[in-house]
Amino acid sequence: MPLARSPLAPESFPVLPAIPGVRVAGQAVGIKKTGAPDLFLAAIDPGATVAGVFTRSLCASAPVEWCRRALHRGSVRVVVANSGNSNAFTGRAGEITVERTVQAATGLFGCDPDEVFIASTGVIGEPMAPDAIGGKLDAVAPNLSPDAWSQAAEAIRTTDTFPKAATRKARIGGFEVTINGIAKGSGMIAPDMATMLAFVFTDAAIGQAALQAMLADAADRSFNAITVDGDTSTSDTLLLVATGKAGNDPVRDHRDPELQDFRRALDDLMIDLAHQVVRDGEGAQKFVTIRVTGAESNRAARRVGLAIANSPLVKTAIAGEDANWGRIVMAVGKAGEKADRDRLSISIGGVEITRDGQRVPDYDEAPVAAHMKGREIDIAVDLGVGTGEGTVWTCDLTHGYISINADYRS
Amino acid sequence: MPLARSPLAPESFPVLPAIPGVRVAGQAVGIKKTGAPDLFLAAIDPGATVAGVFTRSLCASAPVEWCRRALHRGSVRVVVANSGNSNAFTGRAGEITVERTVQAATGLFGCDPDEVFIASTGVIGEPMAPDAIGGKLDAVAPNLSPDAWSQAAEAIRTTDTFPKAATRKARIGGFEVTINGIAKGSGMIAPDMATMLAFVFTDAAIGQAALQAMLADAADRSFNAITVDGDTSTSDTLLLVATGKAGNDPVRDHRDPELQDFRRALDDLMIDLAHQVVRDGEGAQKFVTIRVTGAESNRAARRVGLAIANSPLVKTAIAGEDANWGRIVMAVGKAGEKADRDRLSISIGGVEITRDGQRVPDYDEAPVAAHMKGREIDIAVDLGVGTGEGTVWTCDLTHGYISINADYRS
Repeated sequence: MPLARSPLAPESFPVLPAIPGVRVAGQAVGIKKTGAPDLFLAAIDPGATVAGVFTRSLCASAPVEWCRRALHRGSVRVVVANSGNSNAFTGRAGEITVERTVQAATGLFGCDPDEVFIASTGVIGEPMAPDAIGGKLDAVAPNLSPDAWSQAAEAIRTTDTFPKAATRKARIGGFEVTINGIAKGSGMIAPDMATMLAFVFTDAAIGQAALQAMLADAADRSFNAITVDGDTSTSDTLLLVATGKAGNDPVRDHRDPELQDFRRALDDLMIDLAHQVVRDGEGAQKFVTIRVTGAESNRAARRVGLAIANSPLVKTAIAGEDANWGRIVMAVGKAGEKADRDRLSISIGGVEITRDGQRVPDYDEAPVAAHMKGREIDIAVDLGVGTGEGTVWTCDLTHGYISINADYRS
Repeated sequence: MPLARSPLAPESFPVLPAIPGVRVAGQAVGIKKTGAPDLFLAAIDPGATVAGVFTRSLCASAPVEWCRRALHRGSVRVVVANSGNSNAFTGRAGEITVERTVQAATGLFGCDPDEVFIASTGVIGEPMAPDAIGGKLDAVAPNLSPDAWSQAAEAIRTTDTFPKAATRKARIGGFEVTINGIAKGSGMIAPDMATMLAFVFTDAAIGQAALQAMLADAADRSFNAITVDGDTSTSDTLLLVATGKAGNDPVRDHRDPELQDFRRALDDLMIDLAHQVVRDGEGAQKFVTIRVTGAESNRAARRVGLAIANSPLVKTAIAGEDANWGRIVMAVGKAGEKADRDRLSISIGGVEITRDGQRVPDYDEAPVAAHMKGREIDIAVDLGVGTGEGTVWTCDLTHGYISINADYRS
């Protein structure tokens, strides 16, 4: 049963320009029983670099384990991603499917095996036929085009209620470069597995080590700063491909000032995609921004933010439009990071509720209650112990989440 | 609005015998606006020892901070616990209320301040009148009785749907001793705070250090091995009082073989109380036992068990009666403890589903699906990397949880 489009979705799908050196396609090849698009293919011209960030799960899928090994070389010619089956927890059979996919791609594009990257999302523990993906590549390749970004974003959806994409421009050494990204989020229906996949492409010329460093940094501020339910998929995959066709001199050090504008644009694009994932959280009715300041370190600030964002009590209070700041105190207390109860300040919607460990004397709940009725909820917490800060994003926990994950049966 | 009694509740309240040296009372003193019982008082004869385990929250309530200090002496004459207001995040006002309660108790019972223990549960961040508790003790004291355990258990309820108690007998050096316990659980209605309180009394003669060691061990296997939603209260308090009236020679070393039967009985009683807390989890429809074996250590086993027990995806699948073992794989993978994907075994209801990293070849879902329809769900996971093991308990995550925590407004 298709789910209604999230009330937090952007108004429309953005127009993504072509990225020189990249052609993409997305279409149905029969992996999903519904007949919906389920295969994304990207063909990249020789000479590109690639960076990747993967799930920290200790039970990672066969495609994730393949990508981790392939990344050592840092070169890429093909990206293949399917939806409908995550090829996770499929033992030796899963490895064979990956090997056959790689074989098909190298034959079709004349590249080496470690230039092929694979991602899969969907049912877990259901063995795939060895040629379920590889056997379809020759049917998809003729449709590769510089412009098929919308089809690409469609093909990686599982239960996402809208396709996710973003684009940015930046300048490197006088040359304009483009960054395009597509993503899929955390929607799921039993027995599908929530998975975050994102594929980002640019025509900038950037060395592999610099690309990897920038991607890891940007991931920390975007995909690692969002949470829907605190669960971690076996298949999360984030790839950044740089084709080097924009004309700029290749930049090899991520600290090079030449990259400053590119970093800003990359961060911005990845935060945009990450927000879209949260805005499509199962049953989400409210988009929640949690800003933590005064922490012992930036890392501590993010941990406190995630403790608040992952608390079922905080998330249900937001769903109930209840300005229940006591539950925020509780979540701060359990985060395990340094905090001072008697210096803790909490604001909601810009209204200070507590200061110095107790409710402000003249607290007026009316403006806070009005803020809680909106779609966008802002929570600010100052821990009062240092200068660390960070922002995380989440959604509320609603009856819709339970319905999607408990009531719908496969 | 009172909630319906949990479908997982025990059939009846147990009969608790008198504990020589302890008198208890429970009644309404006006802290709860509903007029329901809200004050528990215990008076203990001189010569008793006391042990305590408290919340790890860094924003602990004023009563918890008081108890931590008082525990240094290890002697106890009075226990006071109120429901209706947690006296948490109330700043200096909260400390004054604690001080006035202690003053009233020492005056009434002729004891020292550090022989008075206080616990509070209920609304957070709402300052109490200084004498809201202390000013009522003289009205409650005349009702102290060796037999008022049922009233005592009633007085510490917040949104618990049933009062919780247990009793056990044990032998120490030829003497029969009794252990009684009462507890309150994790029910809550906005803006009340979920809190676990448990008060355990015995007539055994046991030195304070031995009592503390046994209580900490038993807590690890009981209250620290349960979870409803992974949130941690600012007020969790567990006290164990030993009056020394049973006649046994005082035992001072917790490793003394004389204590073997007492330890067994104490563990058993605390697991019973902890199970009652889970059986009263908000919206709980199923009681879930998760047994983890083959871990690197017992501690690792419990962490993996809690990762499974706290996963919203696992808990909603159980609510949906869906044998979704893929979500268990996901939860094992995110726990961060050593596991070997290719040796992981998962069973539900005694039926092996995966072995050596993939689904068993002849897996028949029918008996597992039948098990999922019951009230008691058993999940067993073998990690295949060591000999560590542990058991945790939880409940499912249902629409009832969302309704209690989001829909009901104070």
